[in-house]
Amino acid sequence: MANLINEDFLLRSDLAKKLYEDYASKLPIIDYHCHLDPKEIYEDLKFDDITHAWLGGDHYKWRLMRANGVTEDFITGDQPSYKKFEKWSETVPYLFGSPLFHWTHMELNHFFGINEILSPKNAKEIYDKTNETLKTLSARQMITNSKVEVICTTDDPVDDLKYHFLLKEEDISFKVLPSFRPDKAMNIELSWFNDWVDQLAGVVGFELNDYESLKKALRQRVEFFNEAGAKVSDHGLDVLLYADATEEELAAIFAKGRKGEKISDHELAQYKGNLLVYLGTLYNEFGWVQQYHIGALRNNSDRMLNELGPDTGYDAINDGLIAIPLRSILNKLDSTDELPKTIIYTLNPRDFEVAITIMQAFQGGGIAGKMQFGTPWWFLDQRDDIEKQYRALGNNGLFAKFIGMLTDSRSFLSYPRHDYFRRILCNFVADQVNEGLFPLDLEVLGKIISDITYYNAKNYFGF
Amino acid sequence: MANLINEDFLLRSDLAKKLYEDYASKLPIIDYHCHLDPKEIYEDLKFDDITHAWLGGDHYKWRLMRANGVTEDFITGDQPSYKKFEKWSETVPYLFGSPLFHWTHMELNHFFGINEILSPKNAKEIYDKTNETLKTLSARQMITNSKVEVICTTDDPVDDLKYHFLLKEEDISFKVLPSFRPDKAMNIELSWFNDWVDQLAGVVGFELNDYESLKKALRQRVEFFNEAGAKVSDHGLDVLLYADATEEELAAIFAKGRKGEKISDHELAQYKGNLLVYLGTLYNEFGWVQQYHIGALRNNSDRMLNELGPDTGYDAINDGLIAIPLRSILNKLDSTDELPKTIIYTLNPRDFEVAITIMQAFQGGGIAGKMQFGTPWWFLDQRDDIEKQYRALGNNGLFAKFIGMLTDSRSFLSYPRHDYFRRILCNFVADQVNEGLFPLDLEVLGKIISDITYYNAKNYFGF
Amino acid sequence: MANLINEDFLLRSDLAKKLYEDYASKLPIIDYHCHLDPKEIYEDLKFDDITHAWLGGDHYKWRLMRANGVTEDFITGDQPSYKKFEKWSETVPYLFGSPLFHWTHMELNHFFGINEILSPKNAKEIYDKTNETLKTLSARQMITNSKVEVICTTDDPVDDLKYHFLLKEEDISFKVLPSFRPDKAMNIELSWFNDWVDQLAGVVGFELNDYESLKKALRQRVEFFNEAGAKVSDHGLDVLLYADATEEELAAIFAKGRKGEKISDHELAQYKGNLLVYLGTLYNEFGWVQQYHIGALRNNSDRMLNELGPDTGYDAINDGLIAIPLRSILNKLDSTDELPKTIIYTLNPRDFEVAITIMQAFQGGGIAGKMQFGTPWWFLDQRDDIEKQYRALGNNGLFAKFIGMLTDSRSFLSYPRHDYFRRILCNFVADQVNEGLFPLDLEVLGKIISDITYYNAKNYFGF
Repeated sequence: MANLINEDFLLRSDLAKKLYEDYASKLPIIDYHCHLDPKEIYEDLKFDDITHAWLGGDHYKWRLMRANGVTEDFITGDQPSYKKFEKWSETVPYLFGSPLFHWTHMELNHFFGINEILSPKNAKEIYDKTNETLKTLSARQMITNSKVEVICTTDDPVDDLKYHFLLKEEDISFKVLPSFRPDKAMNIELSWFNDWVDQLAGVVGFELNDYESLKKALRQRVEFFNEAGAKVSDHGLDVLLYADATEEELAAIFAKGRKGEKISDHELAQYKGNLLVYLGTLYNEFGWVQQYHIGALRNNSDRMLNELGPDTGYDAINDGLIAIPLRSILNKLDSTDELPKTIIYTLNPRDFEVAITIMQAFQGGGIAGKMQFGTPWWFLDQRDDIEKQYRALGNNGLFAKFIGMLTDSRSFLSYPRHDYFRRILCNFVADQVNEGLFPLDLEVLGKIISDITYYNAKNYFGF
Repeated sequence: MANLINEDFLLRSDLAKKLYEDYASKLPIIDYHCHLDPKEIYEDLKFDDITHAWLGGDHYKWRLMRANGVTEDFITGDQPSYKKFEKWSETVPYLFGSPLFHWTHMELNHFFGINEILSPKNAKEIYDKTNETLKTLSARQMITNSKVEVICTTDDPVDDLKYHFLLKEEDISFKVLPSFRPDKAMNIELSWFNDWVDQLAGVVGFELNDYESLKKALRQRVEFFNEAGAKVSDHGLDVLLYADATEEELAAIFAKGRKGEKISDHELAQYKGNLLVYLGTLYNEFGWVQQYHIGALRNNSDRMLNELGPDTGYDAINDGLIAIPLRSILNKLDSTDELPKTIIYTLNPRDFEVAITIMQAFQGGGIAGKMQFGTPWWFLDQRDDIEKQYRALGNNGLFAKFIGMLTDSRSFLSYPRHDYFRRILCNFVADQVNEGLFPLDLEVLGKIISDITYYNAKNYFGF
Repeated sequence: MANLINEDFLLRSDLAKKLYEDYASKLPIIDYHCHLDPKEIYEDLKFDDITHAWLGGDHYKWRLMRANGVTEDFITGDQPSYKKFEKWSETVPYLFGSPLFHWTHMELNHFFGINEILSPKNAKEIYDKTNETLKTLSARQMITNSKVEVICTTDDPVDDLKYHFLLKEEDISFKVLPSFRPDKAMNIELSWFNDWVDQLAGVVGFELNDYESLKKALRQRVEFFNEAGAKVSDHGLDVLLYADATEEELAAIFAKGRKGEKISDHELAQYKGNLLVYLGTLYNEFGWVQQYHIGALRNNSDRMLNELGPDTGYDAINDGLIAIPLRSILNKLDSTDELPKTIIYTLNPRDFEVAITIMQAFQGGGIAGKMQFGTPWWFLDQRDDIEKQYRALGNNGLFAKFIGMLTDSRSFLSYPRHDYFRRILCNFVADQVNEGLFPLDLEVLGKIISDITYYNAKNYFGF
């Protein structure tokens, strides 16, 4: 196969190439949401081999290997490292239309200087070559040679942030900041709720027997995260719910939850909706940005959840209705003028227009781009849905104020996704100009491109 | 910035230019749905300045100014006129991908002969030049120099249509007709329902103590509107509901509403669904066209609703399910063969295919294009969703019988949106021919273009 | 009008033409789902004339004639044959953007050697010419000259498959296999449920007074179909429902259904969901493929249902939520490792991403492409939604393992839809290569094209 990932990859016009070269390619990366492990950054992880680095935890790849008829022993099982890599190499030529095809080759190119298309024909050669490079290519080097300026990890409120504090003392060219993700406080219906609340009680040093104490504990942890440099929170809102409730009702629901009693659907909507609102007021107080990740449908195969645990490639997109709960939550925060900067991500692409128009209804207060519609997430992180998001945002929001890309990744090798996004961005903008929809004014275009690539995020978060 | 809005704007092929020039550009405008004020037409409103004309009530612009960080005093507040215009000029260069960018410059071009891109650099110059023009450019002149033939305003059943009657006596080159929009009769759950019913009682001159009287009163007002020249009704169906009900049940629900008692969800669906059906039978009797505008989510910010009132830029797209209620309402009217000509507009683009296939299931009776899927509305009035609608309609309806564009606007400066639509139409049709999907037969293509631009609407409404 | 359907139809690049010519155009057809009548194949039906062949039962055409203002007497009524054909010819030039325009001319070209665009100008000439051809062009000839290898019809469990057995004895170049479609066993809420169950009892020769007997009877019929060569089942899941239930609850619901008692919504979800799961375990045991056709909204006009019966052009797309029931049903089958190969078709294009990501969560077991997202169905069988499906599948599934096209048709003249699909496929693949998204490696591309065109289906079903 021919060389695919050359300097013009995804850039289909001279203008696109110029915009990319002059306004996007050289800027640093602000990766304001990801799932990297701060311990691995602190310890400067080295990988055993390319199988470890690429196939050790990447459930995107696992799904496609399964779809290609690869058996589980070569995916999550105990087959030898090279055999697993070989199975991936057999899958790659069939990845027509998949972002995994592009990411695979952008990563080979960026980190390993390899410009070939991976296939069984060159699998051994590429295995050896990448492994040779990995002997010296550590996690921190992957970060620095990708020009990463800021990394926001995703952390549980009970976390002691030990590695974040240790990293503060290190002489490194990038910041690693925690993000506050209190999903376990929200998910009162799950079996591990009470264990987690007990854990939180241990961390804050007081009993959590009522809803007031929970709120007090969460506030303490927000303060603690804030001291550790956090500027961002994150919520995995698989189902978005809201119902009005009094403090008394919330207290009663929490008490039921603590006793392991059954919570009704209405009570769930009350608890989850109002705790989210309470947390929003805290984020607002501390000047944080809040993120809502809406609409994942996780762990669909009970059988494989039992065998492999979560995050192993058995997730999907849900189709719950979001307009009414989303507007209700934002309105509640807005009604007391306590709505913080907010980034909304929807996993179902049919919800883009709903989310964008609702978010736009809460702009204001003199903050440019206060409300953000996030970059396409997870299953949507590919050219088609990225361009769909650009269009939807342009049609009903202020595209030029968009804070752009993040990796959302668990892998140190994922930074080329920023380059992928930037190329798609420059090509999209150039296309619109070439179609006569916007004037060819390089000053304006260059500012829009470099803002979305870097400066908007830099200004928005205030890292 | 270079000149954007030239004669070839949006026309990307020679065939597109030819189709536009020969079959679309010169035809008059039938604006069969808008929110212009008949009083302002009658009094031939003159604008204080471009800020008054452009920013006085245009909540599309307000939203984007807010998103750009402009504070409310420059939007709806009391900052001086030029300061407000300047803030808009600062926002314009960031409108990449927005239809507002195109509308702004089409309006500058069409009404003011200005071919520049608005920005802070030329804001003062454009402010002065447009204000100079506005000294002599009145509302009626905007209408006539846009070649408008018919305007249908949007009117409450209790309206006395005074200005419509006065306009009938005027020597003007265009018709201004009322449209019957009885949303307040439908919205029995809202606080102002009883005040409105009392108002209606005053207008018809009899008590409205039972559902039969309400129906009788509405029939009288349809007759009155019909005498005033109305041919069209309109319904804002933010949520589409239907449940079967007996006349006795409807009477009981109305009685509860009159007493201000709580109406259940099921009763709401009964009342709203069946009153809509009743009104449909009236429209059918009078040979009117009915319009359903489905799916707006209004006034999302309670705080700003209190401060500024409705229609100030805090609306969005809802995601309620529509298939079952829509088919139920149409089926009910169809079951007695009383279904009038109907135009369905859905604000959520994910509903296009559902609405089109349902509407197609009620074609018949020997009326070409009896059931219409309306042109993209509000948030969808831009190239992407206009083309999406063309495609969806072509794939499952009879695109060639489409009655085309309307402004839905509150502004006399919005007529260039018809030109926008026509250019997108000609370019779309030409693209399909250029891709070999339809033959290059100018007779057929020209007829399709001019029909959608003008003749289909002319024949459909019978103004 | 010019010649439209030439050898390059839909192929917009040299690469597209090459891929089509070398890897798609010459392969046979496996039509693994259609609604052809085995009796008509066995008796080798000859058509009275082109009106009979084209307009006798094609409700796609009927809908568009109605939308064009043709009255019912020329559609389903008793007007003379030529008059009906003439009305269709009047509609054709208005089919801009419709797949019917392409199918009409592909069929004229393929079966009748006619390269003209049908219109009232040449209607009589084409009527005469096609009728002349139809004197000798029988159903079987249409099948063989379309290079059809396998036809799977759609059959009721009570069917004796008489014509399938007779066809096995015939000396023909293609296989005709039954498919098991037990919708009537599922639809316990419909008025004809008990008549059908009684019919089934008659066929199996024992009483069906309890749920166990129903399951036993269905198992017997699966065995019978299997002996007749069936490899595929099919379900019309207009609404997708699932709720957990014990065998006792299912028995009680079935008993209520047998007594004609009202079944609650929850009971419906229990019965339908769990019977579907039970049937899935049977299909799995016999190595069949199951098909789920999700989301039709049928018979929307009661008036026309009474006049003309079902399948007469009054159907539409529903918008029910599918994620939770779909994942629940698949998970239930997967939890005991009894999930058979499954093809999921969604009629609402907004559900593509949901269905694809859920289906992907159940890949596994070492079977390449075990879970399939079916080709766009019914209202979606046109270029836009076919390309949308390609993109969605490429982005989140393994496009290269897609089993491709079927006709789903009731007409022997529909086979050119396979050619339509192949041309769209080759053009799509070539576009991606031409845009630099996949390398120009003819070996890989050729395999992907010919696999999707023919070999994937051949391997998948094991006919």
